[in-house]
Amino acid sequence: MEQVANNVYQLQYAIDTFYFLVCGALVMWMAAGFAMLEAGLVRAKNTTEILTKNVALFAISCIMYLVCGYSIMYGGEIFLSGIANVDTAAVLGEFAGREDGFEGGSIYSGASDFFFQVVFVATAMSIVSGAVAERMKLWAFLAFAVVMTAFIYPMEGNWTWGGGSVFGLYTLGDLGFSDFAGSGIVHMAGASAALAGVLLLGARKGKYGPNGEVNAIPGANLPLATLGTFILWMGWFGFNGGSVLKLGDIANANSVAMVFLNTNAAAAGGVVGALVLARIMFKKADLTMALNGALAGLVAITAEPSTPTALEATIFGALGGVLVVLSIVTLDKLKIDDPVGAISVHGVVGLLGLLLVPVTNSDVSFSGQLIGAATIFGWVFVTSLIVWGILKAVIGIRVSEEEEYEGVDLAECGMDAYPEFTQK
Amino acid sequence: MEQVANNVYQLQYAIDTFYFLVCGALVMWMAAGFAMLEAGLVRAKNTTEILTKNVALFAISCIMYLVCGYSIMYGGEIFLSGIANVDTAAVLGEFAGREDGFEGGSIYSGASDFFFQVVFVATAMSIVSGAVAERMKLWAFLAFAVVMTAFIYPMEGNWTWGGGSVFGLYTLGDLGFSDFAGSGIVHMAGASAALAGVLLLGARKGKYGPNGEVNAIPGANLPLATLGTFILWMGWFGFNGGSVLKLGDIANANSVAMVFLNTNAAAAGGVVGALVLARIMFKKADLTMALNGALAGLVAITAEPSTPTALEATIFGALGGVLVVLSIVTLDKLKIDDPVGAISVHGVVGLLGLLLVPVTNSDVSFSGQLIGAATIFGWVFVTSLIVWGILKAVIGIRVSEEEEYEGVDLAECGMDAYPEFTQK
Amino acid sequence: MEQVANNVYQLQYAIDTFYFLVCGALVMWMAAGFAMLEAGLVRAKNTTEILTKNVALFAISCIMYLVCGYSIMYGGEIFLSGIANVDTAAVLGEFAGREDGFEGGSIYSGASDFFFQVVFVATAMSIVSGAVAERMKLWAFLAFAVVMTAFIYPMEGNWTWGGGSVFGLYTLGDLGFSDFAGSGIVHMAGASAALAGVLLLGARKGKYGPNGEVNAIPGANLPLATLGTFILWMGWFGFNGGSVLKLGDIANANSVAMVFLNTNAAAAGGVVGALVLARIMFKKADLTMALNGALAGLVAITAEPSTPTALEATIFGALGGVLVVLSIVTLDKLKIDDPVGAISVHGVVGLLGLLLVPVTNSDVSFSGQLIGAATIFGWVFVTSLIVWGILKAVIGIRVSEEEEYEGVDLAECGMDAYPEFTQK
Repeated sequence: MEQVANNVYQLQYAIDTFYFLVCGALVMWMAAGFAMLEAGLVRAKNTTEILTKNVALFAISCIMYLVCGYSIMYGGEIFLSGIANVDTAAVLGEFAGREDGFEGGSIYSGASDFFFQVVFVATAMSIVSGAVAERMKLWAFLAFAVVMTAFIYPMEGNWTWGGGSVFGLYTLGDLGFSDFAGSGIVHMAGASAALAGVLLLGARKGKYGPNGEVNAIPGANLPLATLGTFILWMGWFGFNGGSVLKLGDIANANSVAMVFLNTNAAAAGGVVGALVLARIMFKKADLTMALNGALAGLVAITAEPSTPTALEATIFGALGGVLVVLSIVTLDKLKIDDPVGAISVHGVVGLLGLLLVPVTNSDVSFSGQLIGAATIFGWVFVTSLIVWGILKAVIGIRVSEEEEYEGVDLAECGMDAYPEFTQK
Repeated sequence: MEQVANNVYQLQYAIDTFYFLVCGALVMWMAAGFAMLEAGLVRAKNTTEILTKNVALFAISCIMYLVCGYSIMYGGEIFLSGIANVDTAAVLGEFAGREDGFEGGSIYSGASDFFFQVVFVATAMSIVSGAVAERMKLWAFLAFAVVMTAFIYPMEGNWTWGGGSVFGLYTLGDLGFSDFAGSGIVHMAGASAALAGVLLLGARKGKYGPNGEVNAIPGANLPLATLGTFILWMGWFGFNGGSVLKLGDIANANSVAMVFLNTNAAAAGGVVGALVLARIMFKKADLTMALNGALAGLVAITAEPSTPTALEATIFGALGGVLVVLSIVTLDKLKIDDPVGAISVHGVVGLLGLLLVPVTNSDVSFSGQLIGAATIFGWVFVTSLIVWGILKAVIGIRVSEEEEYEGVDLAECGMDAYPEFTQK
Repeated sequence: MEQVANNVYQLQYAIDTFYFLVCGALVMWMAAGFAMLEAGLVRAKNTTEILTKNVALFAISCIMYLVCGYSIMYGGEIFLSGIANVDTAAVLGEFAGREDGFEGGSIYSGASDFFFQVVFVATAMSIVSGAVAERMKLWAFLAFAVVMTAFIYPMEGNWTWGGGSVFGLYTLGDLGFSDFAGSGIVHMAGASAALAGVLLLGARKGKYGPNGEVNAIPGANLPLATLGTFILWMGWFGFNGGSVLKLGDIANANSVAMVFLNTNAAAAGGVVGALVLARIMFKKADLTMALNGALAGLVAITAEPSTPTALEATIFGALGGVLVVLSIVTLDKLKIDDPVGAISVHGVVGLLGLLLVPVTNSDVSFSGQLIGAATIFGWVFVTSLIVWGILKAVIGIRVSEEEEYEGVDLAECGMDAYPEFTQK
């Protein structure tokens, strides 16, 4: 009997671990989504460099989060997070003291938890690369990535998911703040860092004319951008679905299923919202707006995908889709040049996501969400501004005018992305 | 003891739910596969529009199936399917009345069931977009998508998987009809709607010459088409594997495993069948035929992937691969212009799949399969013809000759897919 | 009570089967990764053919391994592997004789095991296609694929994972050889077959100048190559993670989680190692080296991803990333022309992976690793050389000079991959 109960416990441990790993693999896959989305939306001459950035930032995120990020966010020693396997006997000993093996804290491998967490860091960092595309120095960007993933993100992650207090002043959880899978903690954080970079960097040459013209700079490869969006859409099932943190009983399984369903519904709503508004505003079925609409729907539901009905999720997604179109147009009026719309998708709609939580989750307060959003934005924006500023002063963050004209691929990477398709 | 049995039951519920969600995510991924396949097989000037169609039809499918499709197909209120989480206590109460918790109906989250079903609708609709590519108006297509996913597909879905009777006249299940994962219900249905559209739409300008010539119109991006095929191949594991509907005991786990194995084997057989026949007929290793062969193998096995041996599955797939080459050539002789071969792959081979079921599954009758196929084709083709006809009369379904010549991207979407790679 | 224990056993069976299937689907996905990587790194005029090779070799691998490869590798009848479902009653009867149902051998579907194994064969074969790209005859390549997947790979697979003795002379397992997921058995084996082919085939025209110049022949589509790398990275979680062979208890779940974590860490290390060394050597952020670095990191950890700490895995990956850059440069000096770097990534770093195992796994001996590596390389290289040699003598393995100049797409496949993007 005891042996059977023991085995049931082991099975639940295995299932919850596997669920984490599958969801983590899906989130890792989002790195490919960002890479394809951004590569599709920049010009051909800047494609190799954005691909290099995306591959390198993922690697840097994984290393820096291992070296110290995870420890800063969730406690423990500061350097070289000691990811160790739980001893089976110890886990079972812990189980022996319980009534039935199903109550109690997390029962899954610590390594699976790290794996799931580390891919989130890379997501936050991926958001930055698109916004600063086509004119930022590659090595300055990678230097920023080191600080962002080792320190800036883990700090605000500690204040939110880590449960830590903000400089000993207040604790967000106590104020009724909640951000299920990271509309604010991941997406708005990435966008805040991006905004700081964009402000210091300035717009691409030719983007804004002297008389207030906004010149379209079309992306070189829209199938790639579409593929990237589908990859992100798929990966988001892991991003939100894994954030339930547990699968192995009826209540949690139901919750994971609702999260998958609502994540999909919100993306669908976002596509329709953006496509219809773009049709009204521009008289065309604007593919890039439809793609940004899908992503906006996904960002909008990320702060709380478990409590809305599927219809509410669709509507929240549609709101995100509408908002992202308006935001992209507005940022261009403000001459904030974001080649892929990352600040709108992840920042503006990330804030919307946070503010929508209290609508369906009565445990969360509107004021808590506002304070949380202000904390995340304030911290990430200010620290990023400082880091970008230091980089600008020390090594420079913008390529030369000639390099920008020739394309950063040549200057930074020494190779064309499509050597046979474009004429020099 | 009771508590342990209860926990075992909860674990099975969680596993079966997760299995559904993973399979559903793979089927959602097929949307990307169709988008890439179709984008790769059309000309550059029609690429943005086919991408927009694919993204938008997925969103529309998700919304319309939620609004009424799921209810029509599986009963319940007609509007706004009430996807609600099962109450844990109620589920356990139901369990308490059983002997051991493993017999009985489905035990998984209702939300996971909806999620798995909704991505099938999108698959059916995705089939249509390729066949009508390069000359159909975008908004007419999207209007058709609304009716197809809200009503046409759910009706025939109700008669088959839903167990409903066909207009009160006969019940397909009673006649020995079976379609495991939807060779007919999904694939042939999509192809039937596509055929109706193509007949009303006519061929692309220049496809067929005045003296019976069939002019090849090569796709612009074969790596994209290949990627799309691999995505579909991968997603099909979810499509067929999830259609076992249960994983959590030995018999069902074995069944799911056989389905994965046979799905892969049939695709492999399809590649070889199509490649060899194309080599004989055209003297070349025809990549697009190899890709269509893979898809044909997958469609052929979809009606019954659980009963054949792996060798039988390979042979069935090879038959599909051979048939698809012959069908594509034949449709061109009939001047039925299908740029991506969707009617052949999903319609003609979908029928083959249905007719192969009795070979390895003795519970299924050949006559039942024929009646089922006739019912699905009759219903979807006729209703689609009506809907396309109304759209043609009211808003028109074909772009102007000039728009077709310039490419639908410019007219419909206002942006090129590859602005730097092609000369105007 | 007995019934509950029985059900626990069934659940474990279901979980372990599902884990195998999910991992197998991820490994199948690697086929898409190789196809995209290779298609991105060849010139436009050779793209259709490399895509055709990749699709066809996957199909051939699946069929030949079913026909006889699996039987040769793991015993049983030689032709037409009898993949049959285990009888539920028999499995449960076996269980009844155990203490608690958790000890003992594998408990999962035989079909899931075949599915997981068959995709490994395709991986080994995929490695070959890149190295011989741009000048090998398609049908000669496919003929080689038949022999490689039906006989050459299964033989060495039998000596290693199959536990067979090498020609009755020695048994690798007894000598302290271990190759967890196949740095040697899969990756170095594929590279050995590729090396034999490349030596008989010779370099591409123009690659090496008369005075020792090494001319860069840039790939046509770097986003595609990057996508392929991300696909491989993702698929590798299944490749290594599934090689634990069991998930359903705490110890194995922990092991699977560590393997996921270390696989990711090694890839990250590989990117940084290759990127930094390339920066030092070439003064540029070389994207293709970063991609090969990621793959090298993955290959390096594959021989033992379960015993290193995450930091060790990162370092092992970085070593792989450094080594792959040096190897690619060295092979070019030796005029061994490998368009995608496959021999370096999978062969040279595969050997490194084998030799790193004893560092963290004390059950494994350095001498055993050397003997195992020599055995695998010797067998695969020699038999491949014979098969390539016969093919060269009988049908020829290299296209004509004119065909090579025009591109193999036209000669072999009769269609351009990008008909609108390149000028003739």
